[in-house]
Amino acid sequence: MPLCNRITIVGLGLIGGSLGMAAKRRHLARHIVGVSRHAATLRQAKARGAITTGTTRLEDGVRGADLVILATPVDTIVPLAKRAAASMRAGSVLTDVGSTKGAIVAALERSLPRRISVVGGHPIAGSEACGFAAASPALFDGSTCILTRTTSTDRHTLQRVSRFWKSLGVRVIVMSPRDHDRLLANTSHLPHLLAYALAQTLEGGSTRPMPQSFLDMTRVAKSHPELWDDIFLSNRPALLAAIARFEREWRRLRTAVAQGNRQKLRQCLASAYAKRRAIKDSDAS
Amino acid sequence: MPLCNRITIVGLGLIGGSLGMAAKRRHLARHIVGVSRHAATLRQAKARGAITTGTTRLEDGVRGADLVILATPVDTIVPLAKRAAASMRAGSVLTDVGSTKGAIVAALERSLPRRISVVGGHPIAGSEACGFAAASPALFDGSTCILTRTTSTDRHTLQRVSRFWKSLGVRVIVMSPRDHDRLLANTSHLPHLLAYALAQTLEGGSTRPMPQSFLDMTRVAKSHPELWDDIFLSNRPALLAAIARFEREWRRLRTAVAQGNRQKLRQCLASAYAKRRAIKDSDAS
Repeated sequence: MPLCNRITIVGLGLIGGSLGMAAKRRHLARHIVGVSRHAATLRQAKARGAITTGTTRLEDGVRGADLVILATPVDTIVPLAKRAAASMRAGSVLTDVGSTKGAIVAALERSLPRRISVVGGHPIAGSEACGFAAASPALFDGSTCILTRTTSTDRHTLQRVSRFWKSLGVRVIVMSPRDHDRLLANTSHLPHLLAYALAQTLEGGSTRPMPQSFLDMTRVAKSHPELWDDIFLSNRPALLAAIARFEREWRRLRTAVAQGNRQKLRQCLASAYAKRRAIKDSDAS
Repeated sequence: MPLCNRITIVGLGLIGGSLGMAAKRRHLARHIVGVSRHAATLRQAKARGAITTGTTRLEDGVRGADLVILATPVDTIVPLAKRAAASMRAGSVLTDVGSTKGAIVAALERSLPRRISVVGGHPIAGSEACGFAAASPALFDGSTCILTRTTSTDRHTLQRVSRFWKSLGVRVIVMSPRDHDRLLANTSHLPHLLAYALAQTLEGGSTRPMPQSFLDMTRVAKSHPELWDDIFLSNRPALLAAIARFEREWRRLRTAVAQGNRQKLRQCLASAYAKRRAIKDSDAS
């Protein structure tokens, strides 16, 4: 039995497209409506089984939906949510998949009409690829979705959104927007920023041979810059704190190298090694 | 027909063990002699087809060898080479697989007797794993080995060592020890140092969910610290130069984030993105 009658996914990129495919395969809604600015994307999405119907008009797409999921770049979520809310029916639920939560959730709670229930969300999935062409029904397999809870969060709405993600086989973790942003600043936004900086150190021309370590550590620098400047800037305080944490460790290592201090260097490396060895790579999500 | 009669591999860890397996499968020598401090490793290496005979005594192992390959940690290569050379026959060849080349090659050329020919080597293969248990005959598949040429390098010796690696299906690139060290500082040693620093920023306890970006970017921090402090310190000048390059890019990005300067940030990200997109991941080796 479907979880609800009508789900609308706004934005059919990697995440939105994959979400439609996964939800449709599991029959989570009678209607899965896709909203995209591009008619061609809607046609592809329908052909690949990501949506049942599509529209380029946001207002038409969200009308009558039980659940609206905004899967667009971070900076567009709040303005689109405001426009969507005006056409959404009372009692319906709006959520998002944005990579930062503090600013977005605060703005949504402040500006959406009370008749729309809001829960912030962030599935920890995806890759450096983007766009519908990269979408896959398996994108969320084994992944975790963080949902946010604030003093304004309605318990039943949280349950409904949680049930949606769990129905896709996704593990759900609930935390405050602030905790989310701090966690992701440390484990995703900082790594991405480092990857861009490292990629930028490449000298002109293709350098060969190229060790796997370099390729792995710069893989996410293949993520689209126009998505990531938004993410970095919308999580600026937490990211700056993560940067400061990193720089403390970096200075310690750099100083040990510069001084040729083997004992100190080995001590730093051994500590980092132990921390990293304590993580199971299968914990990825 | 075997490439030579007797090859001796000193050190049967990930690289030495894999080298033995790959060489034995391709029948590159009648005898593949393994030298290890541990009799248990020699037994495993024989059982898994990495060597034909083994010994814990370096001098016995290298006697009569046409080619001696030192596959031990960077700091041990020069002292072991000196000891080995005393027992090696005139006209035989000594090479190594150390991750840095400048200091090692200079010391070998300075201190080995003239009757032994020397070529520095560094196969760009391996992983964060170490020890014979991780060895695999496929480790070098599709990889590149850098061999060094200096004013003292004998052309025929370079050809012999090159032929050895090519017989394993490995691409060979020849460059100066200095160019090697600069290249690897940028593309391997700097990334490793960053990975250790990033891993060290982890807060206590296992953090979940753990984004794939963090796991990928800290994977090499699972590399053994006692191998890597040697590598970092034996390539100190080139590594410090690579660090300085990285820090220039990093400061630029950090400043853009701190100032909330979207235009500058996007410009930096777009440049790094273009550089990284220009590399084929299949170029790994």
